[in-house]
Amino acid sequence: MPTYFLLLEYRGQAFEGWQIQAPGSRTVQGCLSQAIQALTGEQVMPRGSGRTDAGVHAEGQVASLELQSEWDVAHLLGALNARLPRDMAVLRAARVPDGFDALRDATGKRYRYRVWNRPGRSPLREARFAHVPGPLDIPAMQAAAAQLSGEHDFRSFQAAGSDVRTTVRDLHTLEVQQGPGGEIEIVAGGSGFLRHMVRNLVGTLLEVGSGRRSAGSMSELLALCDRSAAGPTAPAHGLTLERVFYLRELFGDTVVAASYGDSKGKSVSREPEQA
Amino acid sequence: MPTYFLLLEYRGQAFEGWQIQAPGSRTVQGCLSQAIQALTGEQVMPRGSGRTDAGVHAEGQVASLELQSEWDVAHLLGALNARLPRDMAVLRAARVPDGFDALRDATGKRYRYRVWNRPGRSPLREARFAHVPGPLDIPAMQAAAAQLSGEHDFRSFQAAGSDVRTTVRDLHTLEVQQGPGGEIEIVAGGSGFLRHMVRNLVGTLLEVGSGRRSAGSMSELLALCDRSAAGPTAPAHGLTLERVFYLRELFGDTVVAASYGDSKGKSVSREPEQA
Repeated sequence: MPTYFLLLEYRGQAFEGWQIQAPGSRTVQGCLSQAIQALTGEQVMPRGSGRTDAGVHAEGQVASLELQSEWDVAHLLGALNARLPRDMAVLRAARVPDGFDALRDATGKRYRYRVWNRPGRSPLREARFAHVPGPLDIPAMQAAAAQLSGEHDFRSFQAAGSDVRTTVRDLHTLEVQQGPGGEIEIVAGGSGFLRHMVRNLVGTLLEVGSGRRSAGSMSELLALCDRSAAGPTAPAHGLTLERVFYLRELFGDTVVAASYGDSKGKSVSREPEQA
Repeated sequence: MPTYFLLLEYRGQAFEGWQIQAPGSRTVQGCLSQAIQALTGEQVMPRGSGRTDAGVHAEGQVASLELQSEWDVAHLLGALNARLPRDMAVLRAARVPDGFDALRDATGKRYRYRVWNRPGRSPLREARFAHVPGPLDIPAMQAAAAQLSGEHDFRSFQAAGSDVRTTVRDLHTLEVQQGPGGEIEIVAGGSGFLRHMVRNLVGTLLEVGSGRRSAGSMSELLALCDRSAAGPTAPAHGLTLERVFYLRELFGDTVVAASYGDSKGKSVSREPEQA
């Protein structure tokens, strides 16, 4: 059956996350599925590159789906957007090789966490930045981030109660960037992430920044493999799923230029980042 | 009486503009006045550097007010923010020389108009960007902007029915900047602006960008002094009042660093920009 790729943007506030849950819960996947059904009459469940939690935004979530009929992708994009609620949209639609699976084929992801670091709140940033009023030691946060990046067992940063085969992940990028004024952005890129991992890393880095935890203690924290030893989960509304990465071979160059690339920010190699 | 300077940020959506109007209308000035009264018990009407229209945002609106009692400015800032609605905040509070008047003493202002120029809408930008789905000729818009900048009679760009002494203004900056992805920003800086002037300039530049009006026709359009000859008023939610400028002499350096400066982006001279 014809397989389609959708690049999605959404504001997280009014969604109970990506994944369809109990009837009556408003989810990104559910709203997308409804729009597809309204347009095509087909009842399909789009696959996401991964779940985003309640309140988390996305600029580049990817979904895949199969439809029984052929659709012109420009028409598909416009017609779905006309049927989706205002807080989500399809940025790009493409026909992709049969069998493409947004979850299984993803080779990496990049998230961005935004912090507003001034004593007063910022109404214009309120929806997308977590507010940290007190001073932050940015070099200390950067030193801690450097210790956390790389391949490690991230069990200390995984949501309690998760059940996955392995908690080892390759966090190839963890950068603390100081922007203009009071904006601080934490960029996390890796082959895969555990549940709440980015927000738990951010919560821990913010403790380092405020002096409640030493920058040098990160290796020890990783070694403890104990969620209760790390910092709190930073608020969801500061987090945005920025981009999901796939291998060029799956699509060809032109089709998914917006989402295609290397999550390390370099030109992509022909080798998969992850088996 | 002690005079205070307030630097304000607000989201325009839910305000009927800056200026207090009929009872029951929700305005920035009204909400600020209420917060001041709740804190101090004094009924004062803060003066703004100018009105912003319904829906227009501000990152750097300035208000001045006199209070009968002395207030610690750090306390004033925190206490007002605790009493203001979520969509507005005081970024900075300062004691300034008696007689300071946010409107009369302003020497310049800078606005930024944001356009999202992609076929699909952007939920994350919806609140602050006007959506222009069709292609725009940016070099043509830049050429038109260059013709419009400078000192001219801007009557063609003034809201119909306005009544001011003179419609000559010095628009020293009008720049069309192409940002990453589909973002376009139009920056307008000048000593003063007529009602709807920035949005009418933007509406006209967007007509140039979409090919409905030639880039070379701007001088002629200025000469016509006829509002109906210019383009439509661009939507309010794309516009942000970014900064208001005052002379250094009014405050001293430290007090208002956030708002102090030259609206031309250079280091300020000691000469007033405007008598």
